[in-house]
Amino acid sequence: MRNKSTRLSDVEALEKILRSDDALDPEIASHLQELAARLPLRELISLVERCNSVRAALILRLLPRHRSIAVFDALDFGQQADLIDELGNSEVFEFFDSLEPEDRVALLDELPAEIADRLLKSLKKPARDVTGVVLGYEKGSVGRRMSPEVPDIYPEMTAREALRQLRATARDLETIYTLPVVRTDRRLVGVLSFRELFQAPDDKPLGELMKEAVYTYASADAEETARWFLPLDILAIPVVDDSRRLVGLLTWDDATDIVEEADSEDTARSGGTEALNQPYMSTPLFKLVRLRIVWLLVLAVSALLTVQVLSVFEDTLAAAVVLSLFIPLLTGTGGNTGNQAATTVTRALALGDVRTKDLWAVLWRELRVGMLLGAALGALGLLLASLVFDLHLGIVIGATLFLVCSMSATVGGIMPLVAKKVGADPAVFSNPFISTFCDATGLIIYFFIAKAVLGI
Amino acid sequence: MRNKSTRLSDVEALEKILRSDDALDPEIASHLQELAARLPLRELISLVERCNSVRAALILRLLPRHRSIAVFDALDFGQQADLIDELGNSEVFEFFDSLEPEDRVALLDELPAEIADRLLKSLKKPARDVTGVVLGYEKGSVGRRMSPEVPDIYPEMTAREALRQLRATARDLETIYTLPVVRTDRRLVGVLSFRELFQAPDDKPLGELMKEAVYTYASADAEETARWFLPLDILAIPVVDDSRRLVGLLTWDDATDIVEEADSEDTARSGGTEALNQPYMSTPLFKLVRLRIVWLLVLAVSALLTVQVLSVFEDTLAAAVVLSLFIPLLTGTGGNTGNQAATTVTRALALGDVRTKDLWAVLWRELRVGMLLGAALGALGLLLASLVFDLHLGIVIGATLFLVCSMSATVGGIMPLVAKKVGADPAVFSNPFISTFCDATGLIIYFFIAKAVLGI
Repeated sequence: MRNKSTRLSDVEALEKILRSDDALDPEIASHLQELAARLPLRELISLVERCNSVRAALILRLLPRHRSIAVFDALDFGQQADLIDELGNSEVFEFFDSLEPEDRVALLDELPAEIADRLLKSLKKPARDVTGVVLGYEKGSVGRRMSPEVPDIYPEMTAREALRQLRATARDLETIYTLPVVRTDRRLVGVLSFRELFQAPDDKPLGELMKEAVYTYASADAEETARWFLPLDILAIPVVDDSRRLVGLLTWDDATDIVEEADSEDTARSGGTEALNQPYMSTPLFKLVRLRIVWLLVLAVSALLTVQVLSVFEDTLAAAVVLSLFIPLLTGTGGNTGNQAATTVTRALALGDVRTKDLWAVLWRELRVGMLLGAALGALGLLLASLVFDLHLGIVIGATLFLVCSMSATVGGIMPLVAKKVGADPAVFSNPFISTFCDATGLIIYFFIAKAVLGI
Repeated sequence: MRNKSTRLSDVEALEKILRSDDALDPEIASHLQELAARLPLRELISLVERCNSVRAALILRLLPRHRSIAVFDALDFGQQADLIDELGNSEVFEFFDSLEPEDRVALLDELPAEIADRLLKSLKKPARDVTGVVLGYEKGSVGRRMSPEVPDIYPEMTAREALRQLRATARDLETIYTLPVVRTDRRLVGVLSFRELFQAPDDKPLGELMKEAVYTYASADAEETARWFLPLDILAIPVVDDSRRLVGLLTWDDATDIVEEADSEDTARSGGTEALNQPYMSTPLFKLVRLRIVWLLVLAVSALLTVQVLSVFEDTLAAAVVLSLFIPLLTGTGGNTGNQAATTVTRALALGDVRTKDLWAVLWRELRVGMLLGAALGALGLLLASLVFDLHLGIVIGATLFLVCSMSATVGGIMPLVAKKVGADPAVFSNPFISTFCDATGLIIYFFIAKAVLGI
């Protein structure tokens, strides 16, 4: 976004110094410090995100404190947690203290219990109390990600009074742009955008200015709530307890964070792995292996099912070896059709466009889509296999493709909904599992049709 | 987020009326109108998102105009485009006029040229001009998604003057929370958050209050810029032309929109389909088929490669039918390993954590990860196949798994980077293509090892 030609060379120089394994002599250190001081914040963050924790800690230590705090604050919670080990106690405590209460809690969630405990104890009383409020809510709930610091705005105040008070207290608030209005018992009665307050006549009471509040419960699902920020075009949403008393605000930056994490997790899981929670280049190699090996083993073991299925039909295969030529094509196409449906429905579920009660409607849609796709592919398969081999094999391939596509689309479409219904993650049931399932079932369909048509 | 027990019945009643195919008699219409008026905006949006365009138009027509505008505004551009056909001209023109200029352009992009033209002509002169500015930038650029309406704030102004002017002009601005400061020639000299302005002493000149601006060029990539909102924690970013003159602001809601669209597209493509650009339940059946059939055909045709590979080894297969039993297991595991790597790297690319110049670093990382995964799976395969079949087959399976995993992880990791380098979409090369590639190559590896070890 800046003038790239001059800046890039700075970044490159920095990266080069950081790549070398030599110990840092004072001259290089001062050169590095000078370079890092010159870089815009954006590029500094990029740079740190691409370093392992030793190097990242080195850069943070070279920066003036206000800049290193800004960089640390911008990092993913996973990378922040990695850095804790590499930084000195005093730096860690200072960084931790500078975070918003809800960001502190998100970082604590990534850390081993004893370190989390030590960090919490390092906070001064008011900061510890306010962090404790957020910590008291369950993981995945709105309460766990909300900002507990809210303004004291009452319906009896006039616009001028409210503005004066906000001006005095704004420093302690995460946002002043969305203003929840409460009664003296903290019950939420309305909401006011700062912009409306700012443009209102001085003597207008807030009770006449405020609107009906769109609010959420502290116990509500964080992702579901966060997804509403976009269509409703809101910067923050008031959070209330079960008696509708105001307990915090969920702000747009935390909502965006929640959505990004959820999308990263869904993406990773539908690719058969787990989300990194930190930038790829900064992720240790063994963490990559660890995040993948479990899924890979589970999938490989479940793929033994296909070996089982095939060994049942070993005689058929021996009688017509030509059948084995089409195995990857048929299982692959089944997998692809299933993945298309699963991916589409999983995304729709994540965005809130489809709900579990839509199961039958989705089944009916995907069955029809699958049959149409299967008819097209089956016709093609019939034609090609008849031309290259013979009509009988053409019929086997064509019919199998039709049935496999119909089945895969249907199963792929409803599996994410079934997963959600039983409390599992829909994304997990997306691609790899559907593939394995469609492989085994597709093979059974294939051999039954082959036996019938070819008379083996 | 509201009291669910009372509201849900309203929604259910509405859905029931809307599901019935009967023509709407006046009594039902008035009942429907009453129900729709009672529903909170959030649930009304949800409801419309789940309807086909005929029903959605029906609901919009029953609502008071300010509510129908709010609902229309919240819909995806794809669904808005579908609705244009169903609504009357006067409604369409009114809805279109009520959108922000950049949202108008996003909707126009979804429409056939003649309808887009008619809509543009329906705007009054100032609105048409301001929309024209946005339309002048290329698709996918920041300019195409920015808000061209910016405040006139100069460094010589005092805080009091700036506040007074903002209060007078706020109605025409999309945001007042991020304030770009310009010289009289419109060159950007700094940026000021409203909050700082609000808390500043009355007589302080803006020149002393403003900070160095983080800005972007109108020609910059929209997704790349939008991804920066989260780490930098900003509500809007000033957009400048090549001479650094202020031309607009990219606001957080448009940035969030851009990121959501990009994520939906990536998710869809790695599942081998195209993004819907509208809620699943409102998507016509034939659109679902159309978005999937092309990919499915391309993948099926490329899977003919595996038929080709297997027919080369047909004699080997005939000599040892047992080899065919492991085909789906081996191709499946290769595909899974490749997908894991491709998914991880594609997401890292989307988030900006990995760049194309990291190709060699990624290759080296993924090769090592693949070898470690392959060693684990290969050892398991060796053991199981030796126990169930014999040692020779065990060696074939174990060695194949090791090589297939090493290759798949490496190829899966670098393919997204290669795709980006040649200007293709990394997500496209993610799952389905990698699977097909790994299938064919994996089979070749398998049969070469089998021929060598079993001496066929």
